[in-house]
Amino acid sequence: MFRHTDHLQFDVKPEKPDPVYARKLQELIGGAYGEMTVTMQYLFQGWNCRMPGKYKDMIMDVATEEIGHVEMIATMVARLLEGAPATESTKNAAADPVVAAVLGGMDPQQAIVSGGGPTLSDSNGVPWNGRFIVASGNLLADFRANVAAEAQGRVQTARLYHMTDDPGVKDMLRFNLARDTYHQNLWLAAIEELQADGIEPSPIAPNALFDEEHSEHASSLWHLSDGAASDQGRWAHGTGPDGTTPMSFLADPVPLGDVASAPPPDPKLYATYDGSQGKPRSAAMGTEKGLVGKVKDALDPDNP
Amino acid sequence: MFRHTDHLQFDVKPEKPDPVYARKLQELIGGAYGEMTVTMQYLFQGWNCRMPGKYKDMIMDVATEEIGHVEMIATMVARLLEGAPATESTKNAAADPVVAAVLGGMDPQQAIVSGGGPTLSDSNGVPWNGRFIVASGNLLADFRANVAAEAQGRVQTARLYHMTDDPGVKDMLRFNLARDTYHQNLWLAAIEELQADGIEPSPIAPNALFDEEHSEHASSLWHLSDGAASDQGRWAHGTGPDGTTPMSFLADPVPLGDVASAPPPDPKLYATYDGSQGKPRSAAMGTEKGLVGKVKDALDPDNP
Amino acid sequence: MFRHTDHLQFDVKPEKPDPVYARKLQELIGGAYGEMTVTMQYLFQGWNCRMPGKYKDMIMDVATEEIGHVEMIATMVARLLEGAPATESTKNAAADPVVAAVLGGMDPQQAIVSGGGPTLSDSNGVPWNGRFIVASGNLLADFRANVAAEAQGRVQTARLYHMTDDPGVKDMLRFNLARDTYHQNLWLAAIEELQADGIEPSPIAPNALFDEEHSEHASSLWHLSDGAASDQGRWAHGTGPDGTTPMSFLADPVPLGDVASAPPPDPKLYATYDGSQGKPRSAAMGTEKGLVGKVKDALDPDNP
Amino acid sequence: MFRHTDHLQFDVKPEKPDPVYARKLQELIGGAYGEMTVTMQYLFQGWNCRMPGKYKDMIMDVATEEIGHVEMIATMVARLLEGAPATESTKNAAADPVVAAVLGGMDPQQAIVSGGGPTLSDSNGVPWNGRFIVASGNLLADFRANVAAEAQGRVQTARLYHMTDDPGVKDMLRFNLARDTYHQNLWLAAIEELQADGIEPSPIAPNALFDEEHSEHASSLWHLSDGAASDQGRWAHGTGPDGTTPMSFLADPVPLGDVASAPPPDPKLYATYDGSQGKPRSAAMGTEKGLVGKVKDALDPDNP
Amino acid sequence: MFRHTDHLQFDVKPEKPDPVYARKLQELIGGAYGEMTVTMQYLFQGWNCRMPGKYKDMIMDVATEEIGHVEMIATMVARLLEGAPATESTKNAAADPVVAAVLGGMDPQQAIVSGGGPTLSDSNGVPWNGRFIVASGNLLADFRANVAAEAQGRVQTARLYHMTDDPGVKDMLRFNLARDTYHQNLWLAAIEELQADGIEPSPIAPNALFDEEHSEHASSLWHLSDGAASDQGRWAHGTGPDGTTPMSFLADPVPLGDVASAPPPDPKLYATYDGSQGKPRSAAMGTEKGLVGKVKDALDPDNP
Amino acid sequence: MFRHTDHLQFDVKPEKPDPVYARKLQELIGGAYGEMTVTMQYLFQGWNCRMPGKYKDMIMDVATEEIGHVEMIATMVARLLEGAPATESTKNAAADPVVAAVLGGMDPQQAIVSGGGPTLSDSNGVPWNGRFIVASGNLLADFRANVAAEAQGRVQTARLYHMTDDPGVKDMLRFNLARDTYHQNLWLAAIEELQADGIEPSPIAPNALFDEEHSEHASSLWHLSDGAASDQGRWAHGTGPDGTTPMSFLADPVPLGDVASAPPPDPKLYATYDGSQGKPRSAAMGTEKGLVGKVKDALDPDNP
Repeated sequence: MFRHTDHLQFDVKPEKPDPVYARKLQELIGGAYGEMTVTMQYLFQGWNCRMPGKYKDMIMDVATEEIGHVEMIATMVARLLEGAPATESTKNAAADPVVAAVLGGMDPQQAIVSGGGPTLSDSNGVPWNGRFIVASGNLLADFRANVAAEAQGRVQTARLYHMTDDPGVKDMLRFNLARDTYHQNLWLAAIEELQADGIEPSPIAPNALFDEEHSEHASSLWHLSDGAASDQGRWAHGTGPDGTTPMSFLADPVPLGDVASAPPPDPKLYATYDGSQGKPRSAAMGTEKGLVGKVKDALDPDNP
Repeated sequence: MFRHTDHLQFDVKPEKPDPVYARKLQELIGGAYGEMTVTMQYLFQGWNCRMPGKYKDMIMDVATEEIGHVEMIATMVARLLEGAPATESTKNAAADPVVAAVLGGMDPQQAIVSGGGPTLSDSNGVPWNGRFIVASGNLLADFRANVAAEAQGRVQTARLYHMTDDPGVKDMLRFNLARDTYHQNLWLAAIEELQADGIEPSPIAPNALFDEEHSEHASSLWHLSDGAASDQGRWAHGTGPDGTTPMSFLADPVPLGDVASAPPPDPKLYATYDGSQGKPRSAAMGTEKGLVGKVKDALDPDNP
Repeated sequence: MFRHTDHLQFDVKPEKPDPVYARKLQELIGGAYGEMTVTMQYLFQGWNCRMPGKYKDMIMDVATEEIGHVEMIATMVARLLEGAPATESTKNAAADPVVAAVLGGMDPQQAIVSGGGPTLSDSNGVPWNGRFIVASGNLLADFRANVAAEAQGRVQTARLYHMTDDPGVKDMLRFNLARDTYHQNLWLAAIEELQADGIEPSPIAPNALFDEEHSEHASSLWHLSDGAASDQGRWAHGTGPDGTTPMSFLADPVPLGDVASAPPPDPKLYATYDGSQGKPRSAAMGTEKGLVGKVKDALDPDNP
Repeated sequence: MFRHTDHLQFDVKPEKPDPVYARKLQELIGGAYGEMTVTMQYLFQGWNCRMPGKYKDMIMDVATEEIGHVEMIATMVARLLEGAPATESTKNAAADPVVAAVLGGMDPQQAIVSGGGPTLSDSNGVPWNGRFIVASGNLLADFRANVAAEAQGRVQTARLYHMTDDPGVKDMLRFNLARDTYHQNLWLAAIEELQADGIEPSPIAPNALFDEEHSEHASSLWHLSDGAASDQGRWAHGTGPDGTTPMSFLADPVPLGDVASAPPPDPKLYATYDGSQGKPRSAAMGTEKGLVGKVKDALDPDNP
Repeated sequence: MFRHTDHLQFDVKPEKPDPVYARKLQELIGGAYGEMTVTMQYLFQGWNCRMPGKYKDMIMDVATEEIGHVEMIATMVARLLEGAPATESTKNAAADPVVAAVLGGMDPQQAIVSGGGPTLSDSNGVPWNGRFIVASGNLLADFRANVAAEAQGRVQTARLYHMTDDPGVKDMLRFNLARDTYHQNLWLAAIEELQADGIEPSPIAPNALFDEEHSEHASSLWHLSDGAASDQGRWAHGTGPDGTTPMSFLADPVPLGDVASAPPPDPKLYATYDGSQGKPRSAAMGTEKGLVGKVKDALDPDNP
Repeated sequence: MFRHTDHLQFDVKPEKPDPVYARKLQELIGGAYGEMTVTMQYLFQGWNCRMPGKYKDMIMDVATEEIGHVEMIATMVARLLEGAPATESTKNAAADPVVAAVLGGMDPQQAIVSGGGPTLSDSNGVPWNGRFIVASGNLLADFRANVAAEAQGRVQTARLYHMTDDPGVKDMLRFNLARDTYHQNLWLAAIEELQADGIEPSPIAPNALFDEEHSEHASSLWHLSDGAASDQGRWAHGTGPDGTTPMSFLADPVPLGDVASAPPPDPKLYATYDGSQGKPRSAAMGTEKGLVGKVKDALDPDNP
């Protein structure tokens, strides 16, 4: 269960309105790597965490903080839109090129739909959606995704930092940059901790099926583009970051598989077919015995 | 420019059809972390790479390989659908519980729309979309995303490995697991290489604006959930993985900001308002001088 | 079955083109509360209505009118785009700030994709989709949604009314405002009628399971944010709008449930787990007897 | 800012796993009227509220409660999936019709993507998105939408109540039903309060532009479908629910507008055209004077 | 403006319920090539048609018919769902494998969301959206799209025809097949008519810019896959279907362009860069003179 | 399997940056008829083709070429963005109307998300998705879709050709126009070839179920809009393009079906119902005998 305090985590005080920038800030609300994404990503990871204790508690701490970040940016957007020339007609706007330029750069839905507030969309007005989050239940894989999300979010924040001169906006972004820095450190530390605790011993892949994979294909770069320098990197020599895998370069790879082809089709599906690959297989499942047959067999006195 | 050979990178030979599994495999084609995602993610990263040479060449090698992975799984899906009871009526199906169960688990669009072949969707039939990829131009942030994508993809492949007994399917998945392992090593190695080359010196955040962020907020976990153990991890003590940041725990955080509030609204937008916060600001941009005024000023002989 | 007359329901004659406004009007075509939404919402409600007679007939009357509203706005958009500077190059546009401002505010797809006509998208170019409509089969719940849709639509229309000076556009919007007013009266009247007819007796919730719900939790506001005034409203005192429920305020709520936790995971799904919650449950369904067992039991002579 | 307690608002204890039902419950997490929708809808309404005091405080109370409802259902889904036959092969599953039926009804992504936990999608696996919420800033219109959302949510919960026999699941749903009942009373009470406070005086439409609309079109049902009974309802007689509007029936409506037509197209857009409507208008904005001209005029000594 | 009659265009009388088939039929309502697509595609083409007369009138005739097809299939879905075991618990369902199989194959939203009726989604429950339609204003290009849509729709209908034994369903589908046949003939005839009328003279491409294109690249198949037979088709020899273009085969194509590369990046965007391509270009637009300068120049007495 | 060369298929050298045009070009990358669509459409058609030989080989040739077209436009976008005023503040921008206009017309995500490169979205920033492609397995229907896609793509390219003065951009578009022309010829030739080979004999509909359709409904235009000229076209007279069907005009059509109605609902779904259509049918499937009964019957000695 959650509780809310009406104080913001950090100050959100723009010096003056800037509706063009209010549109750009939408990227940090509803973009693929905005605050909404990390909020829901961490909440679902926390709720789906199978181990009571430090990992789950930490995830819930950070997730709860992130809801407050959505709140901060949503508040900033509303304040940046104060006094925006939202209801100017095009004719009036065109008479003053400053207003005209602003109108061109605004998000029309912030006026028409939200009445001067934020939407749950990105800077192009595309709505946030639930496929942006990842919560696989595998903490190593998920913490990798968390590092990546914080890194992308921080790069976007740094870009946005240069798109404004407003000291109040910059002050808030300085706080956001710092939290993104800390959270990257945090998730990388958590990966080390998983290894130190022996829960996910390998630094590379979640600890799944190493003994089953075709390991002879787990060490070489297939050279499939004609750029000549791809054998010069760390990825083509020596031992991999996991400490065990030899890394190599396959300079002239040949396909290992047969010719790609689709099988003869079911005629009732009307896929175009000339019969060249023989008759279609009849319904595979239907030709099997099925349960009725199996029950009969099981009860057949002549069937030992 | 690209070229194609009609041989597959690896063999794709199911022992027999399995339309229920064909639906599940769609996750590896059109899911958020399927082959389509890594294909387009690496292509856009390569095309957007600003440095000719080993990084760009390597990215294009891997991207080109991944198109072939989409091809492999698409071929596998078509072969698993061979002889599927796609056009059985419900009545017929219900007469044989095996067929009935299979029908329930199938993707209807693989029959109705694709005529017995794959779609560009995930295992729930939701189409792949372009927001699944990330290509920020910042290679450190992007390689972090690549590690994460390969890790999620490998976990999903490992789960799918246990959902089939078909030796042909398992053989292909063993290859996929191995490539996912290599690619994780590769992207982690590439992160090390970026640092070794001095291009992105910090392991933590893309090297942006460290001097501007509020560094006092870059080191502490805000304790906002009442789970008691979140101070016991590596993330709350010592020095961070970046080698410099002190990590700490803020046990009883208080908000730093003022009360969240939205400003007085433009009356023509009909946001509900009782006047309690004073009169709305009039259109900010419109009150500025505008270009006409500036030009006049510039031409005003009394204006030095 | 439907028929069409080539006369519009109301006049649609802009005084002159305004491509910036043409983009904004897209919100009334393809926005979440645009004409397309009410068209398809009412059509599906009408087709799904289980009672021949006045309700179904009325819904079909209104639904059929709304198709004509899409037609009106689509025609208006095409006329507003007449002579738009759609194929100006950026260089030419930048030479005249009026054109430049207009270009910045236009929807590029109205030119590139539609050739100077409307799209089936909102004012940010995001396509309309089928999840915007609701047709639950429960008329009380659906009429509530209809009131809400008309209210949102009317607010958006009122905002758009202030964004133009064009007398022709304003004339059409005056008609739209009036229809939105009538339709709100209509759906509220229909809710009263459902109650008067005794079909949905409660004004509050669709008449479902009142006797089963935990009624002790159906009357109090949980105070979970620290704003001090939430106990001062009508919602925290007296009897509720349904005429029976006592309304109260829970000033200091405590959670009623246990600790949130996820169970031990299936090891083949590779969710990270340390064993702290015991062994995972084996496949619950698989351990049950299944049909074969049941049939055998049923036929077992020793089984009475 | 938010805080979290690790206790759930209400108990969530299924008696035993039911993976088919776990899929259906997704509708209450990520469906258009699920808990995620009301959470984000109320949060954005609260953050966008322009009046400090009882309305804003109440909205934040309810919004904060709803985050906890997402948590409850997410936890329930994970518990219902415990021991699910997620990694059974189709062959094994088909041997036991009970398992087979369960497999057919499961959401494959709950296993492949989430590792045995919930996703942020609906019962068909379609992701939740930001266009599901409405926060227009107009509280009357928004409270209408809130009543509608709670009514739809309650109907869906009532339907789901009949799809399970599990006493633990039913117990949680009884709580959810009660909260949906209270919240409908609450939002209806809040509408009355807005009127009592004189903030939004009209019960019908948000208080916008009544004096501007074509009021002669605000009172009649256009009879456009041939069902004969649509004049028999409350909506075609007497005075409307707003207490002032006369309600009537337009039995044989004729279109008021001219013929629908699109204007001559810009030839560079290649819309098919035979010249029958005359020459296309040349670029309207470009033919206007533009700023340069206006400045010249303003400075022209011959121009008074 | 539209009118509705409550009689269906054709009979829709299933012999008995079939909820599994009701899900499949959703493809014809809300799929990419379902009735909703052709309805909205033709309506927008008609509204956007620039020529009063036979083309526009014909398009509106067909568009209006298609709304009725959505109505027919929506009604069929509701009837197929009558008596569906929608509210059975999983436990009850699993006791009867017939019910279990049916439950597995059903669309849960048809019960939970629509209360036993259709949704505006495809057979996987993904909502229909506005990007499915095309209305470019160019009738030749649009009629090509219409032929394609009717062809896909007819193939899907033919596949669905084989998935049912119900004589009432088959009867309706026979009507749909016939209309799809006629509509293909119609759109192909309309293409011939456009040419006969001299409005779009070329059968191949909309009549745009033939004189500007690089015609030397308009006639050859680039052989970029190693399959050996692609030179054996009509497309590599003789004269093209447009009657003028020579068709040829480029057996060993080499790229005509330079190396793909992205330019030096703006440093404030933090794209990774080593300086190897020189200094980034400074803001191109900002270095231009701008309007102020131009106005000053224009007013400069020394500037002729 | 694929290989890549780092040379582009054709030159991509803009004379100078144009960030407004860079946004418009996104339509050719990620629009519904952009290069991404034809790439994936042809790849899936090739992979799903059931006939080894000329058709499959040709499809793979073209598909492989199209990946290179995505590469060309993606490279062009990055070059057009060089030196774009991406990180200008609104204040700075508003001081120079040229920059202001450019800022208004830019895609903010090309700066914030991609760091000065392309995204996988259309010109409104809406992401490309997998439902844009069609690969039905029926080559006639798919080649019709391919003609349509190339026709739409060519129209859009022609429109974009007029929106720039840049000779380098125009040069690339001249190549794209030519390829779109060739590919239309190619797909039309391939349709002829399918007929010449006797694989899909009818030019009209994929060769499916002509003998089953209600042929009396396959030849007439239903006149459902009151425009008077729709009987004057080729589609209402003579023999259809398929060479056999008589084409006619149904001037005054009447509905053939009964009244549209939905059946009595399952009471547990709470659809509003007054009992006027009798008692709801009880669960149809559940009333059938089920497998247990059938097995018992099969084993019943008294049951012949």
